[in-house]
Amino acid sequence: MLDVALLGTGGMMPLPNRFLTSLICRLNGRLLVIDSGESTQVSMKLLGWGFKDIDAICFTHFHADHISGLPGLLLSIGNSCREEPLLLVGPPGLGEVVRCLRVIAPELPYPVEIMELPYKKGLIHEEVRAGGFLIGACPLDHRMPCFGYRVVLKRAGKFDVEKARANGVPLKVWSRLQKTGAAECDGAAYTADMVMGPPRKPLKLAYCTDTRPVPWLPGFVRGSDLFVCEGMYGDDSFLENAADKMHMVFGEAAKIARDGEVNELWLTHFSPAMPDPGNFIDFARRIFKNSRTGYDRMQKTLRFEDEEEEEAALESVD
Amino acid sequence: MLDVALLGTGGMMPLPNRFLTSLICRLNGRLLVIDSGESTQVSMKLLGWGFKDIDAICFTHFHADHISGLPGLLLSIGNSCREEPLLLVGPPGLGEVVRCLRVIAPELPYPVEIMELPYKKGLIHEEVRAGGFLIGACPLDHRMPCFGYRVVLKRAGKFDVEKARANGVPLKVWSRLQKTGAAECDGAAYTADMVMGPPRKPLKLAYCTDTRPVPWLPGFVRGSDLFVCEGMYGDDSFLENAADKMHMVFGEAAKIARDGEVNELWLTHFSPAMPDPGNFIDFARRIFKNSRTGYDRMQKTLRFEDEEEEEAALESVD
Repeated sequence: MLDVALLGTGGMMPLPNRFLTSLICRLNGRLLVIDSGESTQVSMKLLGWGFKDIDAICFTHFHADHISGLPGLLLSIGNSCREEPLLLVGPPGLGEVVRCLRVIAPELPYPVEIMELPYKKGLIHEEVRAGGFLIGACPLDHRMPCFGYRVVLKRAGKFDVEKARANGVPLKVWSRLQKTGAAECDGAAYTADMVMGPPRKPLKLAYCTDTRPVPWLPGFVRGSDLFVCEGMYGDDSFLENAADKMHMVFGEAAKIARDGEVNELWLTHFSPAMPDPGNFIDFARRIFKNSRTGYDRMQKTLRFEDEEEEEAALESVD
Repeated sequence: MLDVALLGTGGMMPLPNRFLTSLICRLNGRLLVIDSGESTQVSMKLLGWGFKDIDAICFTHFHADHISGLPGLLLSIGNSCREEPLLLVGPPGLGEVVRCLRVIAPELPYPVEIMELPYKKGLIHEEVRAGGFLIGACPLDHRMPCFGYRVVLKRAGKFDVEKARANGVPLKVWSRLQKTGAAECDGAAYTADMVMGPPRKPLKLAYCTDTRPVPWLPGFVRGSDLFVCEGMYGDDSFLENAADKMHMVFGEAAKIARDGEVNELWLTHFSPAMPDPGNFIDFARRIFKNSRTGYDRMQKTLRFEDEEEEEAALESVD
């Protein structure tokens, strides 16, 4: 399972009740942050997941509202007694931007590692390892190189009792094989493929901001359990304005959600001129029904389709 | 009169209910800000004095908690349709720090001007013009070059009826002379010195953070109507810790207030480890009675001693 929370949902400038757009997710106690604008660390304090266990911070791009909080966040991570390296991921130029911003955070008690992902129209980074997370990155279309990200939790196949019996695997190593992938019993070695069915649908979280619609975006977000997407403006009548600023209206985000057959859409990155985004949700829902407007610290735990039943079943095998 | 507000009162990191230490003051509709850490602009939104009319931002030093909010603030000032130059004042190196931080705020619709003040032990900058404000700067003793600031409103002498009569100034130019400094009547020229007494006590606001006590500090803050001073820790038992980190305890700030014969002390820049600074106010009050612990957006309007009576009297002369 993957815990997800929006740390902020605003674009351009932090507002008293709407911090800048950022997301955090938690997997097995480790954290991954996407974007870190001014005040993101305040929202993290309110959320209470801590600073110490951040494996990586991924940056979509280098507009201030997505990275201005980095120096303060690096220092706060430092104050959490962290010593492990911290990975920063982003478009080309990230190293130089971080070097500049660290003029006010030169000394940290842990190393900072930089991973710049090549940026090219249509070039999707399918699988990138970021600490305990398997992420993907997708080039977007904004006023500067910009990436959308996804976090993927792969899932092994289901335990196949018939297969296990057909392969003559003793009952007492079933559970161990499923958990560890290999086991020995009475001098014979057994492997997971002797008991497991084919891999199942992974868990998938996608996050896209800031961008105009691009043709490869539905493919990138396809089948996501949760798709967090920018909607700078709600009303379709702001389409021209959105296009001019290289952003989207709710309806455009909803089309990507629909075409990508995601399970749920959360809109974010709202213009400061739109104090109540919920007023415009129908512009999204008429295209993709399961749309919601995000708010700061909106949370959800994503689970595999039959995760709870399987855990219960596994307990009974033990 | 001078309106004063604390934008934040925290040290090290912004907290949900305590933003980073910063002050704003307003004089004749113009604004001056001292320090701008992460989230300072959020507090400015809550205060509601606007962004457009800032004449200058003075920086005490370049630790992140005092300047990390600059890129975002510069952009928000830009979004207020400002075109006039903005002055940034601070210790040597300010230009380079600003240049680095502007990697994420390269384009602004107004020019940014830099004023680096020479920093030398005991060297006080008595009078520096910062837009509509007359400021002074005092070297402090921190882990890097750091300035305390004061804002001074000079005040002309009182209208002296006896003197006006003795100089044969006609009654009908009295008010004009006081307001504009010169007047003509029936072909004769009159000047302010013919009707005004000697200059009176100025209005004075002093602000000192981050520092250990220095011998010239009471002189710098002498006679302030309001002295805003760091008190990283409340309890005297934290003195060693404070000294180690080049900060002060409440009692040390109170000694400066007492020795400088200020009118009122507001403590600020509290450690994140001190959630309720008010619990420790007696450590200051036993040394300087008129001490208060600051809180975000604590406000006061400083007025000249008999400002209101004088305004009323002047109206009656008109």
